[in-house]
Amino acid sequence: MPSSNTNSAPLVVTLGDPAGIGPEIVAKAWATLREDGPVFFWLGDAKLVPDIPTQTISVPSEAAQFFLDALPILPLDTTQPAKAAVEALERSASLCLSGDASGVVTAPVSKENLYAEGFDAPGQTEFYADACDIARSQTVMMLACAQLRVVPLTIHLPLKDVSNALSEALILNRAKVTDAALRRDFGIAAPRLAFTGLNPHAGENGTIGKEEAQIIAPAIAALQADSIDAQGPFAADSLFHAEARAGYDVALTMYHDQALIPIKTLEFHGGVNVTLGLPIVRTSPDHGTAFDIAGKGIANPASMINAITLAAEIADRRARG
Amino acid sequence: MPSSNTNSAPLVVTLGDPAGIGPEIVAKAWATLREDGPVFFWLGDAKLVPDIPTQTISVPSEAAQFFLDALPILPLDTTQPAKAAVEALERSASLCLSGDASGVVTAPVSKENLYAEGFDAPGQTEFYADACDIARSQTVMMLACAQLRVVPLTIHLPLKDVSNALSEALILNRAKVTDAALRRDFGIAAPRLAFTGLNPHAGENGTIGKEEAQIIAPAIAALQADSIDAQGPFAADSLFHAEARAGYDVALTMYHDQALIPIKTLEFHGGVNVTLGLPIVRTSPDHGTAFDIAGKGIANPASMINAITLAAEIADRRARG
Repeated sequence: MPSSNTNSAPLVVTLGDPAGIGPEIVAKAWATLREDGPVFFWLGDAKLVPDIPTQTISVPSEAAQFFLDALPILPLDTTQPAKAAVEALERSASLCLSGDASGVVTAPVSKENLYAEGFDAPGQTEFYADACDIARSQTVMMLACAQLRVVPLTIHLPLKDVSNALSEALILNRAKVTDAALRRDFGIAAPRLAFTGLNPHAGENGTIGKEEAQIIAPAIAALQADSIDAQGPFAADSLFHAEARAGYDVALTMYHDQALIPIKTLEFHGGVNVTLGLPIVRTSPDHGTAFDIAGKGIANPASMINAITLAAEIADRRARG
Repeated sequence: MPSSNTNSAPLVVTLGDPAGIGPEIVAKAWATLREDGPVFFWLGDAKLVPDIPTQTISVPSEAAQFFLDALPILPLDTTQPAKAAVEALERSASLCLSGDASGVVTAPVSKENLYAEGFDAPGQTEFYADACDIARSQTVMMLACAQLRVVPLTIHLPLKDVSNALSEALILNRAKVTDAALRRDFGIAAPRLAFTGLNPHAGENGTIGKEEAQIIAPAIAALQADSIDAQGPFAADSLFHAEARAGYDVALTMYHDQALIPIKTLEFHGGVNVTLGLPIVRTSPDHGTAFDIAGKGIANPASMINAITLAAEIADRRARG
């Protein structure tokens, strides 16, 4: 049932690193979703997924008619692995911007391999910000599973540099992007944002650190003055059990492990990385290339499946909205 | 069934802060444990627990004969709350050292109130180290629940100071205390110790921080050379789901929230704080005085109950061992 209607355009899944677990989890995701799941096609290579039926397509709109019986593949021009991974990223952005794809789900890449091909963004998130011509600072990484959504306000920084990287402006900016995205993409009318402190016990009234009083609390007050439902800062260790989670829609944490430890403790295999703030829809599994288990048939596709499903939900909501 | 046998001496529970939830959770713990649980007595005050039967005792060995029908209370000399809390700590240490009590479970205190009474240790753990005449550095705080044991290698430090506080000597010392305690007190013949890294992704081969290569990995190598089963450093976000937890007996983390976030996410109400390395047995609930809910009858006694049960298990193991 091919369609040129943007609202029912298929999702595009990128190649990722062909030597990682990407091809395997794409194939498994297709097998799981082929009957009832959202239609997607892969910017990939049939030779990488020998165990499932594939169907070459020439335009995205052909994906729907083949999806039940075969993984639709839109072939890439290049075959050299890193070049092909970059080409897939570039084409996925174009297809989303033109409306030929309703959103992109990125398979995991090896950044080192991409850098060797002249890829000049720190990661895929920044690549899409550039491709969409918006400031990188206006995109926010959120991780989501059934039980929890988390946004780390700083990400791949050495822990000792986190304090200096935090500022009221950074918190305000990322919180506002998050708030807007929860409204637009997740259908939450009045998102409740809960902030962790930076220090143990959220600084315990200043006796174990000053950032809560100097940076985080003023940022929360400014958000509240802007009619955003921002609460905290809370002791991070008391924010992630079931009763606490019932009190907010997203937890904004000060650094990587404050966000990633709880979500991966609760749901190791099924979390999804969502890029908030982009004009296009983009999700990703929350794991890497896993070169160590690639080709063994043991990779868990849950995160890829959930990433595809969530991308479709967001695309549908935007199309309706 | 009074007994002067050290092996069957009762546990002593301290007063804690009388204005906190301590009296309520002691009373609830007695009600839960009176039929089948380990015998304990409270260094407390019957007026603080009006809803349950109490029995004043004059020596610890009288506790067992009354325990089924009433909470045994060994009265304190002082009644002023903070003075009484300090007296309870001091007497509990003496009773454990003399063998009249088989171990101590401390109810939560307000440190500020204790400091006003001349209490000069940073916390109860250091108090017991001093009382037992061992170096404070030879005690280690471990948090334990049914699913996880964690040791934070630094505790109440501002996050920005953690990197400077870490050293190979610190890690070696605390790991050896932990290893010895798991053997002696938990009956684990060959404890498996897993270490987190400090930085996101455990530093990702030095690209997100150097402490893993400069401090943590050398410490782990030194422990291995000393025949201790030490592994890591592992990315902290991938160490706390069920599959990962099956691979170790205790996780040693670099800072407070790396340990406290996962255990409180998994088990918010039932975790126990155990002091490793003391000649006496000491456990504690892993929560504070909770002044905000004190007196309302809604405090959850799970952590106190588990602290009492675990103290009894450790005392029994030492007595047998």
